[in-house]
Amino acid sequence: MRQFWKLFHSTALTAMVLVILFLSLTTAASVPSDQIFQYIDEHQNEYVERLKDWVAIESDSNDASKRHLVMNMMLLAEERIRKLGGTVEMVDLGMQELPDGNKISLPPAVLGNITKDPKKPTVCFYGHMDVQPAKIEDGWSTEPYTLTEKNGNLYGRGTSDDKGQVLAVLNAIEALQKHELPVNIKILLEGMEEVGSPGLNTLIEQRNSTFFSDVDYIVVTDSSWLSNKPGITYGTRGVGQFFVEVECAKYDLHSGTFGGILHEAMSDLIFLLNTLVDSSGHILIPGIYEAVAPLTEKEKKFYEETEYDPDQIKAKYGIKQFLNKTKEELLMLRSRCPSLSIHGIEGAFSEPGTKTVIPAKVTGKFSIRLAPNMELSVVEKQVTDYLNKKFTERNSPNSIKLTCHRGAKPWLSDTDELQYLAARKAIKRVFGKEADFIRAGGTIPIATQFQDVTRKSIMLLGIGGPDDAAHGQDEKISRNNFIEGTKLYAALLQELAAL
Amino acid sequence: MRQFWKLFHSTALTAMVLVILFLSLTTAASVPSDQIFQYIDEHQNEYVERLKDWVAIESDSNDASKRHLVMNMMLLAEERIRKLGGTVEMVDLGMQELPDGNKISLPPAVLGNITKDPKKPTVCFYGHMDVQPAKIEDGWSTEPYTLTEKNGNLYGRGTSDDKGQVLAVLNAIEALQKHELPVNIKILLEGMEEVGSPGLNTLIEQRNSTFFSDVDYIVVTDSSWLSNKPGITYGTRGVGQFFVEVECAKYDLHSGTFGGILHEAMSDLIFLLNTLVDSSGHILIPGIYEAVAPLTEKEKKFYEETEYDPDQIKAKYGIKQFLNKTKEELLMLRSRCPSLSIHGIEGAFSEPGTKTVIPAKVTGKFSIRLAPNMELSVVEKQVTDYLNKKFTERNSPNSIKLTCHRGAKPWLSDTDELQYLAARKAIKRVFGKEADFIRAGGTIPIATQFQDVTRKSIMLLGIGGPDDAAHGQDEKISRNNFIEGTKLYAALLQELAAL
Repeated sequence: MRQFWKLFHSTALTAMVLVILFLSLTTAASVPSDQIFQYIDEHQNEYVERLKDWVAIESDSNDASKRHLVMNMMLLAEERIRKLGGTVEMVDLGMQELPDGNKISLPPAVLGNITKDPKKPTVCFYGHMDVQPAKIEDGWSTEPYTLTEKNGNLYGRGTSDDKGQVLAVLNAIEALQKHELPVNIKILLEGMEEVGSPGLNTLIEQRNSTFFSDVDYIVVTDSSWLSNKPGITYGTRGVGQFFVEVECAKYDLHSGTFGGILHEAMSDLIFLLNTLVDSSGHILIPGIYEAVAPLTEKEKKFYEETEYDPDQIKAKYGIKQFLNKTKEELLMLRSRCPSLSIHGIEGAFSEPGTKTVIPAKVTGKFSIRLAPNMELSVVEKQVTDYLNKKFTERNSPNSIKLTCHRGAKPWLSDTDELQYLAARKAIKRVFGKEADFIRAGGTIPIATQFQDVTRKSIMLLGIGGPDDAAHGQDEKISRNNFIEGTKLYAALLQELAAL
Repeated sequence: MRQFWKLFHSTALTAMVLVILFLSLTTAASVPSDQIFQYIDEHQNEYVERLKDWVAIESDSNDASKRHLVMNMMLLAEERIRKLGGTVEMVDLGMQELPDGNKISLPPAVLGNITKDPKKPTVCFYGHMDVQPAKIEDGWSTEPYTLTEKNGNLYGRGTSDDKGQVLAVLNAIEALQKHELPVNIKILLEGMEEVGSPGLNTLIEQRNSTFFSDVDYIVVTDSSWLSNKPGITYGTRGVGQFFVEVECAKYDLHSGTFGGILHEAMSDLIFLLNTLVDSSGHILIPGIYEAVAPLTEKEKKFYEETEYDPDQIKAKYGIKQFLNKTKEELLMLRSRCPSLSIHGIEGAFSEPGTKTVIPAKVTGKFSIRLAPNMELSVVEKQVTDYLNKKFTERNSPNSIKLTCHRGAKPWLSDTDELQYLAARKAIKRVFGKEADFIRAGGTIPIATQFQDVTRKSIMLLGIGGPDDAAHGQDEKISRNNFIEGTKLYAALLQELAAL
């Protein structure tokens, strides 16, 4: 008997192991991905039409007078999730105080759930429904809020950042549902990303033990590739926005009447701004590079393998020369090193023509991109101490005021996490290529917020192209990226289920 | 017979001499100035109403979209001169080319004539009907185009510069006409003064042998006093407006994606602007001070006698400290020395809030006030050579373009000319004070143009107060200056007739 049981036991065990092995090896393959890809190809015009409807809504979160349009956009997103059989909660995020002191409602966040099978892993997607400002007078070739297809590209504000990417996720889910959705889906969409996501951090904290508790993977859509080679983003820089204000008088003065007799605010400000960075892009603020994380061998390899063509970028943007020569150096400068950009001056004369004015109060605006492991609070102190010291040396009777706005921490993930493996496999399946592992130069504050609060695995998997002009004129997504990107999200969900 | 004739002759001669003497001594006194002053006092509310109508027209010559309003303003001025019985010619000054390459009509110049008595001297007044830009958002306490009276001041764009001054001249003529206008009047009004008077120099040249041929005195209204003590302006500084453009790319770039890898146009421009002037206001461009005229004893005396209270000005404008201590030093710095002011940057981010942009093309705007005897062509070369040298030292791959716009020569007159004597007397009669002799820090290009072309006696007699904020927020003229100034112009015409 014991022999029998022993035999049975070992046979049963072996069989179980075999079944498990078989299941684990074939889960991904068992899903008919060809059929799903074919379904996506067949429905691509419908997807483009949906994107057209979304782009038509001028959901510019910068402009308070368009807040109702952002609200409309959130409702359109809600409708789409409900059509996928999902449940949706529209979460009130409270009020926003405008610069004039008035208050206005923030658009609600959308929290969506599709299927709830405890046996399946749960993937949470994040995206945003608001867009940057856009006017045809800015130099657009087409109406920014009328999706226009030209030479394989879909032009329009939000096509790439981020409406097109969110819609690709929802379309992928729909396509998978024609057979079976292999994972549980959660969706968080917001309408204020372009102005710093007010209210969102609180929401994540409040829902950490409820909405997020059973989430296994968080995928942020809001990102793009560095070349035509698909990429997975595993790190971003942070940012600190600095305002330095110099005041020399209560009112703007006439440069004829007052020119020559007073310490002008503009020349003090120009002096201060000129102390920040040298001609080689090196930041002159003492200590600023101290906290920057050392380069690892693994990371170095990613830079070597990444597709990034400096000459092509120079030609496209009309840049004469970069600060460094090699692809690897440039990739490192833009992603693992801090940088300082001076954006402009508020309060001075900025229009065409001439104005013989001595501006009374001028505010220089610059930002510092924070590399891992820089801390904004430390940088803020370094900047403040440095500019105060320089201004004291200047010996001007004017007053300065330094403020730091809208900071975001750098973010760095571990590319060995399981969902990165799934994304690599998905990219290989859809595009037949290895993925680039990218550290973005820009800032996705939500990545850090998710990491800090939920402690879940976070990945940025976008489908934007390298030349989509996300915040610029003629923003676009290529039809190819939009449709193949839809397949990528479908394949990712299959691979995650198969892990 | 011979005796008789001799006696008759000498008696007649004596009588003639006596009559001439009597006439010459009493011409000024024979005009009932008290009645005229009383008439002006009694009609002051009507004058304010007229000014209100003029201020209501937003005749901003900087803004091409408001050109029709400048045209309307010229028509209002024409109507007023016609009401004084004058004849008016509206002179077409041709077209203006806008920065975008489009062309737009210049507003016509107004040439007016009132009375034509060859026995009377002819006085030509010059003024302008256009204004500087003004928006309530700039920080005005009242609507800039709604004349508002508060605490004895008439607030509104153009009340002082120059609509109020032109209207005071026309009102003075009207008051004198109730008895008899003692001089012939010519009037030249333009609508593009605030943007450099395009077309006006050609007009003066073309009409030099016609309209200007019988002019004895040219009086420019467009000026103000240094204190509450009335002043006559006998000199102005010139100006050169400089634009330095730096370009680093064809399109604005995202500071996340591109920050750290290229030579940013803004930091090159900030570097260049920082080389222009030191913290003590000293211009760093080599050779710039070489041509400045030496100080004379007579001029030095004017500075000593001029009323100018640095402490009061500091308090009014919220200026902490001037570059020098004594009244005389400050007066010299602002009128007989060059100065350099940085006005602002076009093409960078200048709005409230933040924008993570690397501006592609930025243009720094600065001007240099030219003291007698500086030549703009020399200064332009000095600036160009200096900035090119500095930019070469910078070793940036970006391109710069330096242009000099809207130059005006400095102007200096002789205070011993007859009309200066008449103006002194008129000031003494109306205000009971000696006049200040002023050299203005600002630029009245028309003064130089008149001098160069017509070779007539030129004088600047304005009625603006020292704190009128001509180009700033809350521009005003005091009711007192507006009304007593009207009397001053009436008295001046009487004194000119009596010379």
